[in-house]
Amino acid sequence: MKLLIDKVMQEGIVLGNDVLKVDSFLNHQMDPVLMQEIGHEFARLFAGESVTKVLTIESSGIAPGIMTALVLNVRLIFARKRKSLTLTEDIFVEKVYSFTKQETNEITVSRKFLKPGDKVLIVDDFLANGEAASALARIVEQAGAEVAGMGIVIEKSFQPGRRLLTEAGYRVESLVRIASLAGGKIELV
Amino acid sequence: MKLLIDKVMQEGIVLGNDVLKVDSFLNHQMDPVLMQEIGHEFARLFAGESVTKVLTIESSGIAPGIMTALVLNVRLIFARKRKSLTLTEDIFVEKVYSFTKQETNEITVSRKFLKPGDKVLIVDDFLANGEAASALARIVEQAGAEVAGMGIVIEKSFQPGRRLLTEAGYRVESLVRIASLAGGKIELV
Repeated sequence: MKLLIDKVMQEGIVLGNDVLKVDSFLNHQMDPVLMQEIGHEFARLFAGESVTKVLTIESSGIAPGIMTALVLNVRLIFARKRKSLTLTEDIFVEKVYSFTKQETNEITVSRKFLKPGDKVLIVDDFLANGEAASALARIVEQAGAEVAGMGIVIEKSFQPGRRLLTEAGYRVESLVRIASLAGGKIELV
Repeated sequence: MKLLIDKVMQEGIVLGNDVLKVDSFLNHQMDPVLMQEIGHEFARLFAGESVTKVLTIESSGIAPGIMTALVLNVRLIFARKRKSLTLTEDIFVEKVYSFTKQETNEITVSRKFLKPGDKVLIVDDFLANGEAASALARIVEQAGAEVAGMGIVIEKSFQPGRRLLTEAGYRVESLVRIASLAGGKIELV
C-alpha cells in the first residue's frame, strides 16, 4: 500500500506524542481512489476466510468498509455510537471507552443483521488501544457469529491494541504500522 | 434505479405516517452493489456540472457519497455532527434542526477543504424538511464555493424539503420520490 504510506508520511499531522491527524485523506476529507485500494487490499488479505459480512463503526470506518464489502461481494454493517442506554431487545450493545475523549460510549448493532454462521470481517480506520475493535468482536460473538479477522487502516503499534487483540486470538492485518510519533516524527514499524 | 426502487418497496418499513426505515440496505446494513449503482447514477446526473468536491454528512451519507466521488474522480468531505459549540477559527459551523429527534445539532467542516472556486455536489441519504441539505449548502457558500446540485437517495416528497431547496435555486435530483407513507403503504411519485 505505497499510496497509503505516502499519504500518511506526506499529509499526516502529529499532535502531541500519540495523535496522528489524517483528516485530509481518511476521516474528514476522503480520497475515494485510496479507499478503493484499501478495499482491494483487505479483500485480498482475507480472501481465504469465507467472509459473509463486513462490520465497522461510524463514521470513519464506513468508506474503507464499503469498498471492502464491494470487493468481497457481501454486506457492510456499521455499528452506531450513542451516549445513553435505552435497552431494547432487538439490538446488541457493547461499551467502548475512548481514551482520546475520556468517555464511554455504547455501540449498537441490530440483531437482525448478524446471525450464527456469519463470518465477520471487522474493519476500522485506526487501531490504538483496541477498544472499538474488541467491542465489535464482542458483538459478533454475542450474535453467535465468528470473527474472520480485523482489517485496520492505520495501527499505532506503540499502543497496546494489536497485542491485546492477537493474544485474544484474532488475526489483525494493519495496512500501515506506526512505531512512534515521538518528537512530532512519524516512524513506521 | 430499478434496484433501489425494488429495495425500497420490498425492504422499507413504514413507521407511523412519515418515517421510512431502510436500515437493511441504506443506513445500518448497506448493500455495496446498490451503493455503487447510486454513485454511478449521481455521477451521470451531475456529469455536466464540473463538480470538484462531493460533500455529505455523517454517517449514512458516506457510502453513497464515496461511491459518487469515486466515479466523479473527486474527493469526498463528510460534515461532522456535534452537540455543543466550541468556536474555533478553522471550521465552518451551521445549525441543523432534526424534526425526528427534536434537537438542534451543529455540523462542521474544516475550512481547509472547501475553497472559492469549488463546485460542490451535496449528497445525502434522505430529504425530508431539507434541514441537513440547506445547512450543507450554507457551509459551501460560507466557503465562497458554489453548490453544483443536490443528490438525494430517498426523497419524502410529502414533506417540504424539495420545495424549499428548489425555491432557493438548487438543483435537486432524488433517486426515489415517495408521495405518501399513509396507512403504512409506500406510494411513489
